[in-house]
Amino acid sequence: MARVVLGLSGGVDSAVVAYLCARAFGSDNVHAFRMPYTVSSPESLDHAQLVIDALHIPVETVDITGMVEGYTAVEPQVSPARLGNICARCRMVVLFDQSAKLGGLPIGTGNKSERLFGYYTWHADDSPPINPLGDLFKTQVWQIAKELGVPSVIVDKPASADLIKGQTDESDFGITYQKADRILHFMVQGYQKEKLAEMGFDKADVDLVWKRVEGTHWKRRMPTVAMLSTSAIGEYYLRPVDY
Amino acid sequence: MARVVLGLSGGVDSAVVAYLCARAFGSDNVHAFRMPYTVSSPESLDHAQLVIDALHIPVETVDITGMVEGYTAVEPQVSPARLGNICARCRMVVLFDQSAKLGGLPIGTGNKSERLFGYYTWHADDSPPINPLGDLFKTQVWQIAKELGVPSVIVDKPASADLIKGQTDESDFGITYQKADRILHFMVQGYQKEKLAEMGFDKADVDLVWKRVEGTHWKRRMPTVAMLSTSAIGEYYLRPVDY
Repeated sequence: MARVVLGLSGGVDSAVVAYLCARAFGSDNVHAFRMPYTVSSPESLDHAQLVIDALHIPVETVDITGMVEGYTAVEPQVSPARLGNICARCRMVVLFDQSAKLGGLPIGTGNKSERLFGYYTWHADDSPPINPLGDLFKTQVWQIAKELGVPSVIVDKPASADLIKGQTDESDFGITYQKADRILHFMVQGYQKEKLAEMGFDKADVDLVWKRVEGTHWKRRMPTVAMLSTSAIGEYYLRPVDY
Repeated sequence: MARVVLGLSGGVDSAVVAYLCARAFGSDNVHAFRMPYTVSSPESLDHAQLVIDALHIPVETVDITGMVEGYTAVEPQVSPARLGNICARCRMVVLFDQSAKLGGLPIGTGNKSERLFGYYTWHADDSPPINPLGDLFKTQVWQIAKELGVPSVIVDKPASADLIKGQTDESDFGITYQKADRILHFMVQGYQKEKLAEMGFDKADVDLVWKRVEGTHWKRRMPTVAMLSTSAIGEYYLRPVDY
């Protein structure tokens, strides 16, 4: 029997993954977790509930506030960005522990746009071993969401990490997903900046996308090991195996 | 200026990394963190102190008990193995947050033996971006520790993750590092089982090591992405770049 666990944020990515998993494994085998923190939007919990009601999947709510405040009690002056990363990583701790409890695999919900932009917390959103949306741009996730029947209130709202009040992805980026995804689409196929300008893309937009991708390569690689032998794990490029 | 943060457990791996970092970056730039949990051995804190006294590096102690219990308060029935993983991951959350606070890079302390055995918590001990010991077997770490002048009480004690009272690595494995490292050394150079038997290695020892390595490949790879295009990040093997 295959069983999976996933965090249900109320956003479109985790909703689509829940719909796909319910089809693939059967509703009973998809264990959803809502992991609110004190500043999480109440709307997020409501939107997660819409998914649960539609799919009839088992759900638990694990408030991470106690965990986060167990740390901020000894480290009180955390900035909003640091707090966002702490929350994202605490959710990873909970999800992996629940996966051990239930004997299910954690399923990731990151999409290709945010992965290329490095717009996620390292060792948090990117941590699950299986990622169904990892090769789909955000605009493609929205299309699939409509096709799958994800409630339109979830599909149509602005994308947000819901880590800081009022934050949206697109205001953080300075570019819309509609524009960014088209540029990323050509970039990952090897088109150079000059070619994209010729094709009519705005130079400032192209520069912005390029800078994001080039500045975040380290998040899409294994950590670096000091190579001291001819058999360094994952580093020694003449060996096609991992040891 | 280069600044690094590392967790100082009282064990030999993190002691060696602290000694190396103090040489490489200067003592003032090596920020050590002791992150005890309620069941951590008091000896561990003392041994970490020996390193701090020898190197004159800045140190802070962040007790993770509040964080861990913020979760176990809502999930009380965790097994010792689950609790160990929760503690290891909470230490990662603290270390990465402190690295953001101080503007320093987290430095890993995992060695090649434990990496090949998969004997670590995923997204915890293996999470720092730079790993000076990642290509050194445990027996080599012990040798370097002596060379660097790490206090002998740290070098000579049995290796332990200090997550469960009385636990040692070697009793968990069912084989000593002295034996395992010699087998791993030949295995990662491509020697097959039969060859190792011919060379005089005990068959049961070889089988044990093989099983450990083969059962933990997933921990030494990036998470899997469903490939849906010809530009899947890190998956599409005809592209030598990560996008």
